[in-house]
Order: sequence, then C-alpha cells, then structure tokens
Amino acid sequence: MADAVATPGQTMEQAIETPGETLGATAAALKADKTDWKQIKRQVIGFTFYRILPEWRRLPEAERAEQKRRFAEVVKRWNQPGRMLSLSYSTVGLRGDVDMVLWTISYSVDDLSQMRAELLATPLGGYLETPYSYLSMTKRSQYLIGHEHEGQADSRGFLRPGGQKYIFIYPFWKTRAWYLLPIEERQRLMNEHIRVGHLYPRVKLNTTYSFGLDDQEFVVAFESNFPEDFLDLVQQLRETEISAYTLKDTPIFTCIRMTPEAMLDRLG
Amino acid sequence: MADAVATPGQTMEQAIETPGETLGATAAALKADKTDWKQIKRQVIGFTFYRILPEWRRLPEAERAEQKRRFAEVVKRWNQPGRMLSLSYSTVGLRGDVDMVLWTISYSVDDLSQMRAELLATPLGGYLETPYSYLSMTKRSQYLIGHEHEGQADSRGFLRPGGQKYIFIYPFWKTRAWYLLPIEERQRLMNEHIRVGHLYPRVKLNTTYSFGLDDQEFVVAFESNFPEDFLDLVQQLRETEISAYTLKDTPIFTCIRMTPEAMLDRLG
Amino acid sequence: MADAVATPGQTMEQAIETPGETLGATAAALKADKTDWKQIKRQVIGFTFYRILPEWRRLPEAERAEQKRRFAEVVKRWNQPGRMLSLSYSTVGLRGDVDMVLWTISYSVDDLSQMRAELLATPLGGYLETPYSYLSMTKRSQYLIGHEHEGQADSRGFLRPGGQKYIFIYPFWKTRAWYLLPIEERQRLMNEHIRVGHLYPRVKLNTTYSFGLDDQEFVVAFESNFPEDFLDLVQQLRETEISAYTLKDTPIFTCIRMTPEAMLDRLG
Amino acid sequence: MADAVATPGQTMEQAIETPGETLGATAAALKADKTDWKQIKRQVIGFTFYRILPEWRRLPEAERAEQKRRFAEVVKRWNQPGRMLSLSYSTVGLRGDVDMVLWTISYSVDDLSQMRAELLATPLGGYLETPYSYLSMTKRSQYLIGHEHEGQADSRGFLRPGGQKYIFIYPFWKTRAWYLLPIEERQRLMNEHIRVGHLYPRVKLNTTYSFGLDDQEFVVAFESNFPEDFLDLVQQLRETEISAYTLKDTPIFTCIRMTPEAMLDRLG
Amino acid sequence: MADAVATPGQTMEQAIETPGETLGATAAALKADKTDWKQIKRQVIGFTFYRILPEWRRLPEAERAEQKRRFAEVVKRWNQPGRMLSLSYSTVGLRGDVDMVLWTISYSVDDLSQMRAELLATPLGGYLETPYSYLSMTKRSQYLIGHEHEGQADSRGFLRPGGQKYIFIYPFWKTRAWYLLPIEERQRLMNEHIRVGHLYPRVKLNTTYSFGLDDQEFVVAFESNFPEDFLDLVQQLRETEISAYTLKDTPIFTCIRMTPEAMLDRLG
Repeated sequence: MADAVATPGQTMEQAIETPGETLGATAAALKADKTDWKQIKRQVIGFTFYRILPEWRRLPEAERAEQKRRFAEVVKRWNQPGRMLSLSYSTVGLRGDVDMVLWTISYSVDDLSQMRAELLATPLGGYLETPYSYLSMTKRSQYLIGHEHEGQADSRGFLRPGGQKYIFIYPFWKTRAWYLLPIEERQRLMNEHIRVGHLYPRVKLNTTYSFGLDDQEFVVAFESNFPEDFLDLVQQLRETEISAYTLKDTPIFTCIRMTPEAMLDRLG
Repeated sequence: MADAVATPGQTMEQAIETPGETLGATAAALKADKTDWKQIKRQVIGFTFYRILPEWRRLPEAERAEQKRRFAEVVKRWNQPGRMLSLSYSTVGLRGDVDMVLWTISYSVDDLSQMRAELLATPLGGYLETPYSYLSMTKRSQYLIGHEHEGQADSRGFLRPGGQKYIFIYPFWKTRAWYLLPIEERQRLMNEHIRVGHLYPRVKLNTTYSFGLDDQEFVVAFESNFPEDFLDLVQQLRETEISAYTLKDTPIFTCIRMTPEAMLDRLG
Repeated sequence: MADAVATPGQTMEQAIETPGETLGATAAALKADKTDWKQIKRQVIGFTFYRILPEWRRLPEAERAEQKRRFAEVVKRWNQPGRMLSLSYSTVGLRGDVDMVLWTISYSVDDLSQMRAELLATPLGGYLETPYSYLSMTKRSQYLIGHEHEGQADSRGFLRPGGQKYIFIYPFWKTRAWYLLPIEERQRLMNEHIRVGHLYPRVKLNTTYSFGLDDQEFVVAFESNFPEDFLDLVQQLRETEISAYTLKDTPIFTCIRMTPEAMLDRLG
Repeated sequence: MADAVATPGQTMEQAIETPGETLGATAAALKADKTDWKQIKRQVIGFTFYRILPEWRRLPEAERAEQKRRFAEVVKRWNQPGRMLSLSYSTVGLRGDVDMVLWTISYSVDDLSQMRAELLATPLGGYLETPYSYLSMTKRSQYLIGHEHEGQADSRGFLRPGGQKYIFIYPFWKTRAWYLLPIEERQRLMNEHIRVGHLYPRVKLNTTYSFGLDDQEFVVAFESNFPEDFLDLVQQLRETEISAYTLKDTPIFTCIRMTPEAMLDRLG
Repeated sequence: MADAVATPGQTMEQAIETPGETLGATAAALKADKTDWKQIKRQVIGFTFYRILPEWRRLPEAERAEQKRRFAEVVKRWNQPGRMLSLSYSTVGLRGDVDMVLWTISYSVDDLSQMRAELLATPLGGYLETPYSYLSMTKRSQYLIGHEHEGQADSRGFLRPGGQKYIFIYPFWKTRAWYLLPIEERQRLMNEHIRVGHLYPRVKLNTTYSFGLDDQEFVVAFESNFPEDFLDLVQQLRETEISAYTLKDTPIFTCIRMTPEAMLDRLG
C-alpha cells in the first residue's frame, strides 16, 4: 500500500487510501526497492483556494489588469527549479465559494508561507479571501519540480504534476474504525478498491498527508482530461466495502488547469 | 433503475434515486435499447445560485437597469443551440440566502466556467455572491438544447427542460449502507418508491450526477406547475422504506421560472 | 391526527405533529366532515426573518423614518382580503441574528415572491439581510384572511391568526424512524402528546408543511399571551415518548406582535 | 431537584440540571414550603453578547467616548428597582467572537426587547453585532433586583446576582434519553452530581429555562472569584454518570464583571 | 498520568491526554514529589488567532508600518518577567482563516483581557478579526516566564516555551465514554500511547486545560523543529486504541515562530 504512494507516477489502482507504513505488503515492497528513501527530503504541499471580493470587480479595468500582472509575477518568480513549483487553476463557475487555486510543491513550510505572504502583499491581496487552505506533506519526495532530477524522471518515476486539464481536489478523513482493523483486513479491502481503480486508467492520483499539520488526514488530488471518467470511478467506488470507512471527503473542488494569467483573467 | 435515468422524458415513477449502472435490470434494459449511448456526449450541468449584495439596492435606478441589461445579454448570448442552454429562475421571497438561479446545460466544463466568468465580469458581478453552486453531469445526453436534435425529440425522448412554472432543486446524498445492499434489495426498495411516484404524474424529475465533481452525489430538480403536488409527494415518500437510506437532501430551493429580464427585475 | 390539522381553530391538543393523511383516524374524521376539502385552495405561507445592517443605524433619523414609512406602506398595500395577509413581529433583543419577522398567508407562491421583492425594492431593502426564511403550505385552507369567509368563521372554523401577543416559531423535522412506525403506534404516541397539550389551553398551535418546498418538514407557530405557559408545555413534552422522534426543532424564535410601524421603530 | 431551583441563594450542590417539576422530591419540598409560589411573577432573563465591528476602532477617540457614554446611560436608566436589573461583563481577549455581555433580569419580554432596542438606537448601535443572544425565564422569581423585597432577602433567599468577579455562561441541552429515564434513576444520577458540587463551595450556580423560547433548553451561569475552581469542578463532573446525558454545553463564555463604563472602555 | 502533566519539561511520552487527577498512579507520583504544588499559582493561558481584514492591505505602506510598530510595542511592553510572556507566530499561507497567533502565559484572566484590549486599541486593531481564541489554564505552574524562578529552572523543570521553530496547536475533546472507563483501563490505553510518543523525541508537548472556561476540554500545543516528525507521530497514533476516544481535535494550526515584528511583516 504505502509503497504505492512511494512510487511516483502511480495511477489510480496503486495509491488510493494507503493504510500506512505498517502493512506487511509495504515491508516487502521496501525491501525490493533499492532507493535510499530516508535520504530524500519530504515535500511540503500547499493547496490555497482564493476568493476575490465582489468589490474588486468594480475597479477600473486598467487597475485590475495591473493587479493581475503583479500577482502573476510573484507566482512565476517563485517557480524555482529544485525549490518550489506552483500550478494554477480556475474554479470560476464551478464552485461558488472559490475562484482560483494554487497548488504549490516545495521543500519548506517557511518558503510556502513567505511566498503566500508576497502574493497577499501585491495590490490584488487587498481584495482576496482564502476560504480554504490545505497544508500537507508527501511521505517521500514525490514530484519532479526542477532540473536537478531531470535525467532521472523515468528511472525514479517522479510525478510531473499538472499534466492534465482538470484536477479534482478534496480533503479526506477515514473513520477511527479503519485504523483499528487488522492489517490483513485492510489489505483485503484495499485490493477491491485497487481493482476498481484499474478500470479507469485515464485518472491519475496524488495523495498527500496532513496528519497533525491541518484539519484533514489526507489531501488527494486526481488529475484527468476526462471528468466523466472521474465521476464514474467515484460512483463505482461507493459500492466497495472500503467506502464505509470514509468519514468525510468534502468539499470537492473541480478545477481547470491554466496559466496564472488565464486564471486571473477569469476573475473579471 | 438506471435505464429510467437513461430514458429522457421520464416522469417521477421512472428515475428517482437510481442505484447505478450495476443493477441487473439495467443490463436488460440496455440490451433492448438500440441507441448507441456510448457515442452520445455527456452533458455538463451547472446550477448557480446568486445573491445580490444589499448595497446594490442603493444604486440609482438607471444604473441598476443598465447592469441588469448587460447581465441578461450575456445569458442570452450563450444560449447557443447544440452548445449551451441556460434557464433562469427567481427565488426572491422564497429563500433568504439566494435571489436568483441559473440552470445551465452544456457539453463542456470549460464553457460553463467561461460563461459564468463573463457574467461576473459584467457590472452586476461587482454586487453578486454565489452562496451555492452545484456542478454535475448527466449519465447520458438527456436534454434537448438545440436544433440539432429537433426532429428526434419524440423518438429519442430528450427532455425539454424549463417547461413548468416551478422547479424544486436539491443536492442529495445516500447513506453508504445503501450502496452495500444487494441489487435485488435495492430493486425492491425502488419499486415501492416508483409506485408512489406514479401517483403524482404532474411532477417531472431530472436527475444529474455529481460524484467526485462536487460535494453532493446527485443534484435533483423536479419541475411542476403544482407546488402542492410536490409537497404531498415528498411527504408521502417519507413513509417508504427507501427513505431511511437518505443521508442528506437539503438545502431545498423552490424557484419560479421566468425570463432573465424578469428574474433580474425581481432583485429590485 | 390529520383531521386535527384540517380543523382550523384548533388548540394545542388537536394538531401538534400530525403523522400524515394515512392514519385511520383521519379517514373516519373525513367521512364525517361534509366540507368538500378538495375544492378549497391550499394556502402558501411565508415566514421571513429580516436583519437590519448595523450601518443603517448610522443614517440620519429623517432618512430612516422615510425608509420605514415606505416599507410599511408595501406591507399594508399587500394586505388584500381574500388574497394576502401579513402579520408583523419584532425580535429585537430576543434573537441576535434577526430583528423583525413577517408572517404572510396567501394563495400563490408568485404573489409571495412579488410582495417580498417590492419590500426589498424600497430604500430600506438596501440595508436588509434575510438570515432565515421558511416557505410552507397548509394542507387545507386554514386561515381566514379576508371578508369572503367572514360569515362562516364560526361554522368553518378558520383561524384568525395574530390574535395573541407572542408567537413562537420553529422549523421542525421528525426522524425517519417515525415515518416507518405502524399507524397504531403513531396514534398511541400522539395520544400522550395530545393529553399534555390539553393542560395548556392558553397556547394555540398553527402547523404548516414544507416537505420538498424548503429545508424543514414543518413550520410550527404557537401563539400565546403567556410565554411561561409555552415554556412549561415544551419542557413537559420532553418527557413524552414521542419526543424521541424529533430530529431537529431549532432555531426557535420568540416574537412580539406589533403593527408594521411599531416593528420598524424598534429597529432604531 | 426542582426545589433546589426554587430556593434562591442556592449553591452548586442544590440546583444543577434539575430534572423538572415531576420528581417526587419536589412535591415534598413544595409541601413544606409555605411561600405561595404561584403568586410570584416569573422573571424574564436575557443574556446578550455584543461584538464591536473593527471599523468602530478607527473612529476618533472623542467620538468613541461619546458613544460609550450614551450606551452606558441607557443601561443605567433601565436599572429600575422591581422592574429590571442589568449586569455588565467584558469578554475582550477571552472570546474571539464576543466583546461584551449584558445579563438582564426583568419581568417582561417586551421590556427586555424595548431596552435592547434603545441600546441599539444609540450611536454605538451602528457598530454592534449580536453573535449570541439567549432568552430564558426563571421557574420562580429567583433574583432580588430592587428595594421591594429588600427586607426579605434573607428569609426568602433571593439571589443577589453579580456578586463575584467572574461569570461562566453556557447554553445547555440534555439528551432525549435523559427525559425518558424513571424519576428514581434521575434522582440517583443527580445525587452523585450534587456530591461533586459540594466539593466546590466557592462556585455559585444560576439555572434559567429556555424550553420553547430559544434554541437551548437551559442557560446556566456560574459565578465565582476563582476560575480554577470552576475548571476543576467541570473536569471532575465529566467522570459522573450523569455527564453522559449532556447533549451540548457550548459555547462557554468566561466573562469579567465590571461597570458598564469599564466594559465599554475595554472595547478600545 | 496526571503527574506527567505536573512535571514540566516533559516530552511527548509523558503527558499526552492525561486522564485526570483521580488516577492511582498520580497519587503515588505526588507522594514522591516534595514540591508543595498547592502553593504554586495556576497559569492562565491565551491562544489568540488574528486575521487581518483584506482592506488593510490597501493602506499606504507607511501607515501599515506605523500600525505594526504600535502593535509590536504593546506585545513587548506586556512581556514582564513573573507576570506575562507572549510568543508570536505566523500562519500566513498555512491557514486560510488566520494570519497570526499570540500564545500568552500569565497569572490572571484580567491581565490577559487587559493586554488583548490594548492590542485592539492600537490602530491595527481597527483591521483585525479574531476567528479563534482559546482560553485555558495549567493544572500547576508549568512555564518559566521570568527571572523569579531563574535559578530553579533545572531542578523544578519549568518549560521554556517557544524554543522550537514550529508549533502545532489544536483544541481537544475526549468522548464521554472515556471519562467513564475504569482507571486501570485508562492507564492501559495511555501506556500504548506513551510508547508511541517515545519514538518521536524531537516533539515536545504542552497540555493546558479549558474545562468550563472555553468550548474545548484541552488546548494542546506541540513544539518541534521537524514538521515531518509530528505528521508521522499523529498518523501512527491513529492506530492506537485510545484514539477511538477522541471526540474532536480540530482545527489544527501549524504556526511558525518569529518575532512580533517578523510576524507583522508577513501580513503585507
């Protein structure tokens, strides 16, 4: 299970709802894996959901354009190979409470905070609220965010995030009963789950961990070019036994991948 | 069950709370159905609920009139046969948290987002909030939204949405226990439900699916000219066994169908 | 049970928490009742709870007075015998989230919406929010709202709403378990409930139905000149068996009956 | 039980969580009590929690001072022996959602509403919100609020509210299961509760009743000069059996008693 | 258990989720402890979470700088050895609803309130909201906040709070079932919990008590330089039996320790 998470580039059938490091299957997988995972820095993940105040839309167009330019500039300045990568998404018309999303992958809680502070210090920051924000970490360094690993992307299998048109993000909690099941039972329940995932190869899963860092236990982000595939997958998963161990998996955000400029233009 | 959904033009007794594609009854129905459903594009549905900020009502009448004109213009410009159809409703005086609703049927998540962005970019957008927004899809192309299917409406049975004075919309979640019932038991429970639905032929049901795309599992929209029929139907359904498998079915929105101009005039 | 609701002019012991039309007792009562209920129009009920924005209180006194005059004018213009009746209440100092309440009885969802739209289109509407709003219907025409039934008030027993100094309003949901009880058991539980109601003859009950029209199942409104009677009644009802079938019965609004002008003056 | 409530001047061990008038013990106590309780007016209690809008703090100091003076004037003008008594508390720095509290004891719902309306009609009212408000009544006249009972304070044991530096207020709901327990069992559970209360003689309890008047069943207010005593008492009560019958007992407000002027000065 | 709390300087394995003073183990520990704990003043703890209003970010830079200076001045003026100590943290980019946190340790509820009032009375106070605020006390004087105990820090083991880069704060409620378990069973469950804690020596725990003073039962604050350690610890604790007795442990705040000036600069 856990190794499914550890192996980046994973598809659906591998990594959903990993029951943790203690499963026997994991130990075996780790033994076979020659990578020295302990040496690899954990990644710090931020999903930040912004809402623009309605009064911003009353500003003159030129002022709004300048504010968008300044905001996009900060996003791009912080995209530094080996340090931080931010992907931008619009949710205008798809959620009522959120207008745009930044998915940031970095190596430092402080970098993430500093970058967000610089965004809010731009003129646009005077008109932004943040209705949702999810902080999480990878269990192992999962995403390829710069040149340093460039040559190893295939062999090491780092994910290249943002390669699909849509992302579906939600925070996730399992019931406490799940965590008290014997390992073998969790494995059995996972197997059925994985079998269903196999049926939807066009959906890619990213699992990150928030235990103790934020309200939820996990933040999961599914990437796909086919929303109908994800809809059908989630509906079908309702009929698996493991589904009864989900405590909460909302809110769910459907987001469209676009450049920072396009994301900002969709605000008005 | 699922075929009830698949057959547009359905009335109440056919389509409520379909338990999914895996039911045996569905397989039989599909076999008998000569339509090549796989070829038909899924429709993308948006229910967007707007609230006008009180301060908008303090603006001069002429300014408000101009803002309403610009907003209605965008709604109508996007009503493009074969691409998008938006129906407009007022909830003034019927809900405290929402003033008007757009029900949009399209074929693209991006179109929906872009259209909503253009609405918010009108001057009225500077005074709007969106307290609720539901994103969903049909399982098969369900609504007739333009000339391309005109001649086939009868034979193919596409719904013509918006034909009744009132619509009753709500998001819907079933309990996880429902999804773990054997198919035969779900069928038995559905049968009773359908029997009650038969008693109210003046109520038409539209079921759409949100699994993974938004917080709820379904968005259902009932159309009728007779609110008292819908009230009596829902009360009577409480006494069916299947009702115990409803996890949540609120908020419920009673909406009055009217032109975009009339909907906007009811704002003040 | 249901006939308790059907018989206007009811007191406490008759009509609380009616279990619906299917009870045997109802059939008997209906048989004895010569009124042709099917011919009687159902009434549309709106309970609208307004909150004044704090900034309104900063306006000059003359402007506030003029705004109140215009608002009261609309309330009174829509009080049309046989069409609509609105009763006005203050909750200032009794609730923190609501300042005033309109209880409107009419025959049309559209009339209700149009009347509320005209209220919000007055200058005061620019400073109002609507934290709560309940839409419901009577099962049969219950209230006497104009001259047309004047002569029949006694024989037909229509309620004359608003005859007491206080009203206690709340939305109400029963558990799903209630709806699955056998009729005889529901009858038995109701009998105890009714017995307690008999002890408080100074409390009058109005039950309205919201199934499918709004979030709650019922909206109940108790009228009395004696708040302590209602407090004691509700506390005593906690010890009845039927009380365990209440899912939710909040928020509860204690409201003081007064003229529209007095209600508005209490805003500041 | 109920007589503990009926006997003002009560300490902790007497009056917490009274199970109502129907307990046998009450009947006995009432028989021994020569007071004609039926003749004594019930008291109407309001706990109103105000929050100052941040923008108020941007006003010039002189304007704020004048606004505070006008607000305090109304509080004091309504302190009328035999009619109304208001106690004032600050929660600045102790709660994030509330800045000050008025605890008002009166004999009339309308007086309470009128007094609060006059407070909101002062210039400070243009900058106040009321995040919480609890309306309740005593079961018997419990507090001594003026000269009329002066000579009987000892013999009749009316409470003199406000005699301690701190007050701890919370709304309170019991589970429905509690109300269905046999009287003897409730008595047994209360006895243990009372035994723990005896250990903290420096904590004084005030119980008021909200059934049907407001969302909660009770509003309880504990007075003490020693916050650590109240903390220890509540923690210890968690280990009593009766604690399992608490449905909800939040939010909890820790408040500091001060004059209206000092309370207002703490706003800024 | 309880003595784990009583012994400041504790690490993870000692003090988490202490089941209260009644455990036998505590009595033994106290007997062995020569300190006269009864003589030691209880500490009053405030965790205050501030959010800056977006409009503040529209102010001229010089005005914002001056406002920050005045706010920091108050924080520092109240840092008085033996009376009060405030630690400052930023949450910008880590939470959407909160921008900065003050953790204040003092000996008086009134001091805490007065200090917070002075903060809000600075010009920055006109742009601050307080979305969360937790009031609690230590069971014994736990933190070393000034010179008076300087010489005894080692022997008495007072905590020196703020020594780590990150703090993880959350309010905490146990289920009522926990409090009704026999002492021996609670001890057994704690032992497993402690065993897991031992595995993460780089995480330090601070437990404070809110029973009766605020909504939650406990406020816990974990300090560490290693967020990944805390993440792994919390995930691993999910698999302990005692975890099923957690009622609620959110929201969770990840905060970065910095000077008041740095914390304020991160606002914009």
